[in-house]
Amino acid sequence: MRTLFQEDLQKLGDELIRISTLAAEAMDKARRAFEDADVQLADEVIAADQRIDALQNDLDEHAIDLLALQGPVASDLRMIVGALRMSASLERMGDLARHIAQLVRLRFPDHVAPDHLKPVFSRMAEHSVTGGRKVTELLETRDLAVAREVTEINEQINELHRSIFTLIAEEDWEASAATTADCTLASRYFERFGDHAVAVSNKVAYLVTGEWDAKAAE
Amino acid sequence: MRTLFQEDLQKLGDELIRISTLAAEAMDKARRAFEDADVQLADEVIAADQRIDALQNDLDEHAIDLLALQGPVASDLRMIVGALRMSASLERMGDLARHIAQLVRLRFPDHVAPDHLKPVFSRMAEHSVTGGRKVTELLETRDLAVAREVTEINEQINELHRSIFTLIAEEDWEASAATTADCTLASRYFERFGDHAVAVSNKVAYLVTGEWDAKAAE
Repeated sequence: MRTLFQEDLQKLGDELIRISTLAAEAMDKARRAFEDADVQLADEVIAADQRIDALQNDLDEHAIDLLALQGPVASDLRMIVGALRMSASLERMGDLARHIAQLVRLRFPDHVAPDHLKPVFSRMAEHSVTGGRKVTELLETRDLAVAREVTEINEQINELHRSIFTLIAEEDWEASAATTADCTLASRYFERFGDHAVAVSNKVAYLVTGEWDAKAAE
Repeated sequence: MRTLFQEDLQKLGDELIRISTLAAEAMDKARRAFEDADVQLADEVIAADQRIDALQNDLDEHAIDLLALQGPVASDLRMIVGALRMSASLERMGDLARHIAQLVRLRFPDHVAPDHLKPVFSRMAEHSVTGGRKVTELLETRDLAVAREVTEINEQINELHRSIFTLIAEEDWEASAATTADCTLASRYFERFGDHAVAVSNKVAYLVTGEWDAKAAE
Protein backbone atom coordinates (compact mmCIF):
# COMPACT_ATOMS: atom_id res chain seq x y z
CA MET A 1 0.00 0.00 0.00
CA ARG A 2 2.75 2.40 0.99
CA THR A 3 4.64 1.83 -2.28
CA LEU A 4 1.49 2.33 -4.28
CA PHE A 5 0.93 5.65 -2.52
CA GLN A 6 4.47 6.82 -3.33
CA GLU A 7 3.74 5.96 -6.97
CA ASP A 8 0.58 8.09 -6.76
CA LEU A 9 2.58 11.01 -5.37
CA GLN A 10 5.12 10.57 -8.14
CA LYS A 11 2.29 10.64 -10.68
CA LEU A 12 1.01 13.89 -9.18
CA GLY A 13 4.51 15.34 -9.55
CA ASP A 14 4.61 14.20 -13.18
CA GLU A 15 1.28 15.90 -13.84
CA LEU A 16 2.64 19.17 -12.41
CA ILE A 17 5.69 18.87 -14.67
CA ARG A 18 3.44 18.26 -17.67
CA ILE A 19 1.33 21.38 -16.98
CA SER A 20 4.42 23.45 -16.24
CA THR A 21 5.98 22.34 -19.54
CA LEU A 22 2.84 23.37 -21.43
CA ALA A 23 2.64 26.74 -19.62
CA ALA A 24 6.28 27.54 -20.52
CA GLU A 25 5.65 26.40 -24.09
CA ALA A 26 2.55 28.62 -24.26
CA MET A 27 4.61 31.59 -23.08
CA ASP A 28 7.35 30.82 -25.62
CA LYS A 29 4.80 30.80 -28.44
CA ALA A 30 3.06 33.91 -27.07
CA ARG A 31 6.47 35.61 -26.96
CA ARG A 32 7.14 34.83 -30.62
CA ALA A 33 3.60 35.76 -31.64
CA PHE A 34 4.02 39.09 -29.82
CA GLU A 35 7.40 39.83 -31.41
CA ASP A 36 6.39 38.93 -34.95
CA ALA A 37 2.67 39.87 -34.84
CA ASP A 38 2.10 36.25 -35.80
CA VAL A 39 -1.63 35.70 -35.50
CA GLN A 40 -1.44 32.01 -36.41
CA LEU A 41 0.90 31.33 -33.51
CA ALA A 42 -1.32 33.46 -31.27
CA ASP A 43 -4.31 31.31 -32.22
CA GLU A 44 -2.31 28.18 -31.32
CA VAL A 45 -1.66 29.58 -27.84
CA ILE A 46 -5.33 30.49 -27.39
CA ALA A 47 -6.49 27.03 -28.50
CA ALA A 48 -3.88 25.15 -26.44
CA ASP A 49 -4.96 26.78 -23.19
CA GLN A 50 -7.98 24.48 -22.94
CA ARG A 51 -5.56 21.56 -22.66
CA ILE A 52 -3.84 23.17 -19.67
CA ASP A 53 -7.21 23.81 -18.02
CA ALA A 54 -8.24 20.18 -18.56
CA LEU A 55 -4.94 18.87 -17.16
CA GLN A 56 -5.35 21.08 -14.10
CA ASN A 57 -8.83 19.65 -13.50
CA ASP A 58 -7.45 16.12 -13.84
CA LEU A 59 -4.61 16.81 -11.44
CA ASP A 60 -6.97 18.36 -8.89
CA GLU A 61 -9.31 15.36 -9.07
CA HIS A 62 -6.36 12.98 -8.58
CA ALA A 63 -5.14 15.03 -5.62
CA ILE A 64 -8.60 14.93 -4.00
CA ASP A 65 -8.83 11.17 -4.65
CA LEU A 66 -5.49 10.70 -2.89
CA LEU A 67 -6.69 12.75 0.07
CA ALA A 68 -9.88 10.67 0.26
CA LEU A 69 -8.39 7.22 -0.31
CA GLN A 70 -5.03 7.48 1.45
CA GLY A 71 -5.76 9.86 4.33
CA PRO A 72 -2.20 11.20 4.11
CA VAL A 73 -0.58 13.08 6.98
CA ALA A 74 2.50 15.24 7.57
CA SER A 75 4.75 15.83 4.56
CA ASP A 76 2.64 13.69 2.18
CA LEU A 77 -0.42 15.79 3.02
CA ARG A 78 1.53 19.04 2.54
CA MET A 79 2.77 17.75 -0.82
CA ILE A 80 -0.76 17.04 -2.04
CA VAL A 81 -2.18 20.36 -0.82
CA GLY A 82 0.88 22.03 -2.34
CA ALA A 83 0.15 20.34 -5.66
CA LEU A 84 -3.37 21.82 -5.62
CA ARG A 85 -1.87 25.27 -5.06
CA MET A 86 0.80 24.84 -7.72
CA SER A 87 -1.66 23.58 -10.31
CA ALA A 88 -3.73 26.76 -9.78
CA SER A 89 -0.68 28.96 -10.40
CA LEU A 90 0.44 26.96 -13.43
CA GLU A 91 -3.05 27.14 -14.92
CA ARG A 92 -3.00 30.90 -14.37
CA MET A 93 0.38 31.11 -16.14
CA GLY A 94 -1.30 29.47 -19.14
CA ASP A 95 -4.09 32.06 -18.95
CA LEU A 96 -1.58 34.91 -18.96
CA ALA A 97 0.21 33.52 -22.02
CA ARG A 98 -3.25 33.31 -23.65
CA HIS A 99 -4.01 36.93 -22.71
CA ILE A 100 -0.80 38.05 -24.44
CA ALA A 101 -1.77 36.00 -27.50
CA GLN A 102 -5.24 37.61 -27.44
CA LEU A 103 -3.65 41.08 -27.56
CA VAL A 104 -1.67 39.95 -30.62
CA ARG A 105 -4.88 38.73 -32.26
CA LEU A 106 -6.72 41.96 -31.38
CA ARG A 107 -4.12 44.23 -32.99
CA PHE A 108 -3.15 42.04 -35.95
CA PRO A 109 -1.78 42.96 -38.51
CA ASP A 110 -0.28 45.72 -36.34
CA HIS A 111 2.21 44.96 -33.60
CA VAL A 112 1.00 45.41 -30.03
CA ALA A 113 4.09 47.37 -28.94
CA PRO A 114 5.52 50.46 -30.66
CA ASP A 115 9.04 50.02 -32.07
CA HIS A 116 10.97 51.66 -29.27
CA LEU A 117 9.31 49.44 -26.64
CA LYS A 118 9.99 46.21 -28.48
CA PRO A 119 13.46 45.62 -26.98
CA VAL A 120 12.09 45.98 -23.44
CA PHE A 121 9.18 43.65 -24.14
CA SER A 122 11.54 41.16 -25.80
CA ARG A 123 13.65 40.97 -22.66
CA MET A 124 10.59 40.70 -20.47
CA ALA A 125 9.20 37.91 -22.64
CA GLU A 126 12.53 36.05 -22.71
CA HIS A 127 12.78 36.21 -18.93
CA SER A 128 9.20 34.96 -18.67
CA VAL A 129 9.94 31.97 -20.88
CA THR A 130 13.14 31.22 -18.96
CA GLY A 131 11.28 31.58 -15.66
CA GLY A 132 8.61 29.16 -16.87
CA ARG A 133 11.21 26.62 -17.95
CA LYS A 134 13.10 26.97 -14.67
CA VAL A 135 9.89 26.13 -12.83
CA THR A 136 9.68 22.88 -14.79
CA GLU A 137 13.35 22.17 -14.03
CA LEU A 138 12.72 22.88 -10.34
CA LEU A 139 9.75 20.50 -10.26
CA GLU A 140 11.96 17.83 -11.86
CA THR A 141 15.10 18.32 -9.75
CA ARG A 142 13.89 20.03 -6.53
CA ASP A 143 17.21 21.86 -6.67
CA LEU A 144 16.90 24.96 -4.50
CA ALA A 145 19.51 26.79 -6.59
CA VAL A 146 16.94 26.72 -9.38
CA ALA A 147 14.31 28.20 -7.04
CA ARG A 148 16.65 31.11 -6.37
CA GLU A 149 17.08 31.60 -10.13
CA VAL A 150 13.28 31.83 -10.55
CA THR A 151 13.21 34.58 -7.91
CA GLU A 152 16.06 36.47 -9.60
CA ILE A 153 14.40 36.20 -12.99
CA ASN A 154 11.19 37.58 -11.52
CA GLU A 155 13.08 40.55 -10.08
CA GLN A 156 14.34 41.31 -13.58
CA ILE A 157 10.81 41.05 -14.97
CA ASN A 158 9.59 43.44 -12.26
CA GLU A 159 12.34 45.91 -13.12
CA LEU A 160 11.43 45.79 -16.81
CA HIS A 161 7.74 46.17 -15.87
CA ARG A 162 8.62 49.38 -14.01
CA SER A 163 10.74 50.61 -16.91
CA ILE A 164 7.76 50.22 -19.27
CA PHE A 165 5.79 52.65 -17.10
CA THR A 166 8.73 55.04 -17.01
CA LEU A 167 8.85 55.00 -20.82
CA ILE A 168 5.08 55.49 -21.07
CA ALA A 169 5.24 58.50 -18.73
CA GLU A 170 8.06 60.20 -20.68
CA GLU A 171 7.37 63.36 -22.62
CA ASP A 172 8.36 61.93 -25.98
CA TRP A 173 5.84 59.06 -25.70
CA GLU A 174 3.84 59.37 -28.92
CA ALA A 175 1.85 56.17 -29.16
CA SER A 176 -1.96 56.23 -29.24
CA ALA A 177 -3.94 55.81 -26.05
CA ALA A 178 -5.08 52.36 -27.25
CA THR A 179 -1.44 51.31 -27.66
CA THR A 180 -0.66 52.70 -24.22
CA ALA A 181 -3.46 50.58 -22.76
CA ASP A 182 -2.26 47.48 -24.65
CA CYS A 183 1.34 47.93 -23.48
CA THR A 184 0.16 48.43 -19.90
CA LEU A 185 -1.82 45.20 -20.01
CA ALA A 186 0.91 43.21 -21.77
CA SER A 187 3.47 44.34 -19.22
CA ARG A 188 1.10 43.43 -16.40
CA TYR A 189 0.56 39.95 -17.91
CA PHE A 190 4.31 39.25 -18.07
CA GLU A 191 4.71 40.54 -14.53
CA ARG A 192 1.93 38.31 -13.19
CA PHE A 193 3.38 35.33 -15.06
CA GLY A 194 6.64 35.92 -13.18
CA ASP A 195 4.78 36.24 -9.87
CA HIS A 196 3.07 32.89 -10.38
CA ALA A 197 6.39 31.27 -11.34
CA VAL A 198 7.77 32.50 -8.00
CA ALA A 199 4.67 31.24 -6.17
CA VAL A 200 5.22 27.72 -7.56
CA SER A 201 8.93 27.95 -6.90
CA ASN A 202 8.44 29.02 -3.27
CA LYS A 203 5.98 26.19 -2.74
CA VAL A 204 8.53 23.62 -4.01
CA ALA A 205 11.23 25.18 -1.82
CA TYR A 206 8.88 24.98 1.16
CA LEU A 207 8.09 21.33 0.51
CA VAL A 208 11.82 20.54 0.19
CA THR A 209 13.04 22.49 3.20
CA GLY A 210 9.90 22.67 5.35
CA GLU A 211 10.50 26.39 5.72
CA TRP A 212 8.06 28.88 4.35
CA ASP A 213 9.55 32.21 3.34
CA ALA A 214 6.38 34.26 3.69
CA LYS A 215 8.18 37.43 2.64
CA ALA A 216 9.41 35.88 -0.62
CA ALA A 217 6.00 34.36 -1.26
CA GLU A 218 4.19 37.67 -1.58
CA MET B 1 -15.94 13.04 17.41
CA ARG B 2 -18.38 13.57 14.57
CA THR B 3 -20.00 16.56 16.28
CA LEU B 4 -16.62 18.06 17.02
CA PHE B 5 -15.72 17.75 13.34
CA GLN B 6 -18.90 19.53 12.25
CA GLU B 7 -17.95 22.31 14.65
CA ASP B 8 -14.53 22.47 12.98
CA LEU B 9 -16.14 22.76 9.54
CA GLN B 10 -18.42 25.49 10.84
CA LYS B 11 -15.37 27.32 12.18
CA LEU B 12 -13.73 27.09 8.76
CA GLY B 13 -16.88 28.58 7.22
CA ASP B 14 -16.80 31.39 9.79
CA GLU B 15 -13.18 32.14 8.90
CA LEU B 16 -14.12 32.41 5.21
CA ILE B 17 -16.93 34.82 6.12
CA ARG B 18 -14.51 36.89 8.19
CA ILE B 19 -12.00 37.19 5.31
CA SER B 20 -14.76 37.88 2.80
CA THR B 21 -16.13 40.65 5.03
CA LEU B 22 -12.68 42.25 5.24
CA ALA B 23 -12.13 41.97 1.47
CA ALA B 24 -15.47 43.69 0.73
CA GLU B 25 -14.66 46.34 3.36
CA ALA B 26 -11.24 46.89 1.76
CA MET B 27 -12.91 47.37 -1.63
CA ASP B 28 -15.45 49.78 -0.15
CA LYS B 29 -12.65 51.89 1.34
CA ALA B 30 -10.57 51.64 -1.87
CA ARG B 31 -13.65 52.80 -3.81
CA ARG B 32 -14.05 55.88 -1.61
CA ALA B 33 -10.31 56.58 -1.65
CA PHE B 34 -10.38 56.36 -5.46
CA GLU B 35 -13.41 58.66 -5.80
CA ASP B 36 -12.19 61.32 -3.38
CA ALA B 37 -8.40 60.97 -3.89
CA ASP B 38 -8.34 60.28 -0.15
CA VAL B 39 -4.78 59.18 0.60
CA GLN B 40 -5.49 58.53 4.28
CA LEU B 41 -8.21 56.04 3.42
CA ALA B 42 -5.91 54.52 0.78
CA ASP B 43 -3.24 54.00 3.44
CA GLU B 44 -5.80 52.27 5.66
CA VAL B 45 -6.58 49.80 2.85
CA ILE B 46 -2.88 49.16 2.23
CA ALA B 47 -2.18 48.57 5.94
CA ALA B 48 -5.27 46.38 6.48
CA ASP B 49 -4.28 43.95 3.73
CA GLN B 50 -1.73 42.28 6.04
CA ARG B 51 -4.61 41.26 8.29
CA ILE B 52 -6.35 39.50 5.39
CA ASP B 53 -3.11 37.71 4.47
CA ALA B 54 -2.64 36.55 8.06
CA LEU B 55 -6.25 35.31 8.30
CA GLN B 56 -5.78 33.38 5.06
CA ASN B 57 -2.68 31.69 6.45
CA ASP B 58 -4.57 30.80 9.64
CA LEU B 59 -7.50 29.38 7.68
CA ASP B 60 -5.20 27.33 5.47
CA GLU B 61 -3.39 25.89 8.48
CA HIS B 62 -6.72 24.97 10.10
CA ALA B 63 -7.87 23.33 6.87
CA ILE B 64 -4.68 21.28 6.63
CA ASP B 65 -5.00 20.29 10.31
CA LEU B 66 -8.54 19.07 9.63
CA LEU B 67 -7.34 17.04 6.65
CA ALA B 68 -4.57 15.48 8.77
CA LEU B 69 -6.53 14.85 11.96
CA GLN B 70 -9.96 13.92 10.63
CA GLY B 71 -9.17 12.17 7.34
CA PRO B 72 -12.41 13.51 5.86
CA VAL B 73 -14.00 11.96 2.75
CA ALA B 74 -16.72 12.81 0.27
CA SER B 75 -18.50 16.13 0.76
CA ASP B 76 -16.55 17.06 3.90
CA LEU B 77 -13.29 16.66 2.00
CA ARG B 78 -14.60 18.74 -0.92
CA MET B 79 -15.70 21.42 1.53
CA ILE B 80 -12.22 21.65 3.07
CA VAL B 81 -10.40 21.67 -0.28
CA GLY B 82 -12.96 24.21 -1.47
CA ALA B 83 -12.20 26.39 1.55
CA LEU B 84 -8.50 26.39 0.56
CA ARG B 85 -9.46 27.54 -2.93
CA MET B 86 -11.88 30.18 -1.69
CA SER B 87 -9.38 31.59 0.80
CA ALA B 88 -6.89 32.08 -2.05
CA SER B 89 -9.46 34.02 -4.10
CA LEU B 90 -10.57 36.12 -1.13
CA GLU B 91 -6.96 36.96 -0.29
CA ARG B 92 -6.46 38.00 -3.89
CA MET B 93 -9.55 40.23 -3.70
CA GLY B 94 -7.86 41.99 -0.78
CA ASP B 95 -4.70 42.42 -2.90
CA LEU B 96 -6.71 43.99 -5.72
CA ALA B 97 -8.38 46.48 -3.35
CA ARG B 98 -4.85 47.28 -2.11
CA HIS B 99 -3.60 47.78 -5.69
CA ILE B 100 -6.38 50.32 -6.29
CA ALA B 101 -5.43 52.09 -3.05
CA GLN B 102 -1.79 52.11 -4.17
CA LEU B 103 -2.75 53.89 -7.40
CA VAL B 104 -4.57 56.51 -5.29
CA ARG B 105 -1.44 56.96 -3.15
CA LEU B 106 0.81 57.16 -6.23
CA ARG B 107 -1.21 59.96 -7.88
CA PHE B 108 -2.21 61.90 -4.75
CA PRO B 109 -3.12 64.81 -4.63
CA ASP B 110 -4.36 64.22 -8.19
CA HIS B 111 -7.22 61.86 -8.92
CA VAL B 112 -6.34 58.62 -10.72
CA ALA B 113 -9.17 58.95 -13.27
CA PRO B 114 -9.87 61.99 -15.47
CA ASP B 115 -13.26 63.66 -14.84
CA HIS B 116 -15.17 62.12 -17.71
CA LEU B 117 -14.18 58.59 -16.65
CA LYS B 118 -15.18 59.04 -13.04
CA PRO B 119 -18.85 58.03 -13.51
CA VAL B 120 -17.82 54.75 -15.20
CA PHE B 121 -15.27 53.95 -12.50
CA SER B 122 -17.82 54.82 -9.81
CA ARG B 123 -20.25 52.30 -11.21
CA MET B 124 -17.51 49.68 -11.57
CA ALA B 125 -16.40 50.29 -7.99
CA GLU B 126 -19.96 50.14 -6.64
CA HIS B 127 -20.58 46.85 -8.41
CA SER B 128 -17.30 45.52 -7.01
CA VAL B 129 -18.29 46.41 -3.45
CA THR B 130 -21.76 44.90 -3.94
CA GLY B 131 -20.21 41.77 -5.47
CA GLY B 132 -17.85 41.44 -2.51
CA ARG B 133 -20.71 41.81 -0.03
CA LYS B 134 -22.86 39.33 -1.95
CA VAL B 135 -20.04 36.79 -1.64
CA THR B 136 -20.17 37.21 2.14
CA GLU B 137 -23.96 36.85 2.06
CA LEU B 138 -23.61 33.71 -0.06
CA LEU B 139 -21.09 32.19 2.36
CA GLU B 140 -23.53 32.90 5.18
CA THR B 141 -26.74 31.71 3.52
CA ARG B 142 -25.62 29.30 0.74
CA ASP B 143 -28.57 30.72 -1.20
CA LEU B 144 -27.98 29.97 -4.89
CA ALA B 145 -30.02 33.02 -5.92
CA VAL B 146 -27.21 35.10 -4.39
CA ALA B 147 -24.63 33.15 -6.44
CA ARG B 148 -26.50 34.13 -9.58
CA GLU B 149 -26.47 37.76 -8.46
CA VAL B 150 -22.68 37.62 -8.10
CA THR B 151 -22.41 36.34 -11.68
CA GLU B 152 -24.73 39.09 -12.96
CA ILE B 153 -22.80 41.78 -11.09
CA ASN B 154 -19.58 40.48 -12.62
CA GLU B 155 -21.08 40.70 -16.11
CA GLN B 156 -21.85 44.35 -15.45
CA ILE B 157 -18.28 44.93 -14.24
CA ASN B 158 -16.96 43.26 -17.41
CA GLU B 159 -19.16 45.48 -19.57
CA LEU B 160 -17.90 48.61 -17.79
CA HIS B 161 -14.33 47.31 -18.14
CA ARG B 162 -14.84 47.07 -21.90
CA SER B 163 -16.42 50.53 -22.00
CA ILE B 164 -13.31 52.00 -20.33
CA PHE B 165 -11.21 50.71 -23.23
CA THR B 166 -13.71 52.09 -25.74
CA LEU B 167 -13.44 55.52 -24.08
CA ILE B 168 -9.64 55.32 -24.03
CA ALA B 169 -9.56 54.47 -27.74
CA GLU B 170 -11.84 57.39 -28.73
CA GLU B 171 -10.41 60.29 -30.67
CA ASP B 172 -11.27 62.90 -28.06
CA TRP B 173 -9.31 61.06 -25.33
CA GLU B 174 -6.95 63.74 -24.06
CA ALA B 175 -5.49 62.33 -20.85
CA SER B 176 -1.76 61.82 -20.47
CA ALA B 177 -0.21 58.43 -21.23
CA ALA B 178 0.46 57.94 -17.51
CA THR B 179 -3.24 58.48 -16.79
CA THR B 180 -4.14 56.07 -19.57
CA ALA B 181 -1.89 53.44 -18.00
CA ASP B 182 -3.37 54.09 -14.53
CA CYS B 183 -6.94 53.81 -15.81
CA THR B 184 -6.09 50.61 -17.66
CA LEU B 185 -4.67 49.06 -14.50
CA ALA B 186 -7.48 50.29 -12.25
CA SER B 187 -10.08 48.89 -14.62
CA ARG B 188 -8.21 45.59 -14.75
CA TYR B 189 -8.09 45.43 -10.92
CA PHE B 190 -11.86 45.92 -10.62
CA GLU B 191 -12.41 43.33 -13.33
CA ARG B 192 -10.19 40.75 -11.60
CA PHE B 193 -11.92 41.47 -8.27
CA GLY B 194 -15.22 40.54 -9.93
CA ASP B 195 -13.68 37.39 -11.43
CA HIS B 196 -12.50 36.21 -8.02
CA ALA B 197 -15.92 36.97 -6.52
CA VAL B 198 -17.41 34.68 -9.18
CA ALA B 199 -14.76 32.03 -8.51
CA VAL B 200 -15.74 31.94 -4.82
CA SER B 201 -19.41 32.04 -5.68
CA ASN B 202 -19.13 29.14 -8.15
CA LYS B 203 -17.25 27.12 -5.56
CA VAL B 204 -20.02 27.62 -2.99
CA ALA B 205 -22.64 26.73 -5.62
CA TYR B 206 -20.68 23.59 -6.44
CA LEU B 207 -20.45 22.57 -2.81
CA VAL B 208 -24.20 23.14 -2.36
CA THR B 209 -25.39 21.41 -5.54
CA GLY B 210 -22.51 19.04 -6.27
CA GLU B 211 -22.52 20.32 -9.83
CA TRP B 212 -19.56 22.15 -11.20
CA ASP B 213 -20.32 24.67 -13.94
CA ALA B 214 -16.88 24.62 -15.54
CA LYS B 215 -17.97 27.12 -18.17
CA ALA B 216 -19.12 29.64 -15.58
CA ALA B 217 -15.98 29.08 -13.53
CA GLU B 218 -13.60 30.34 -16.20
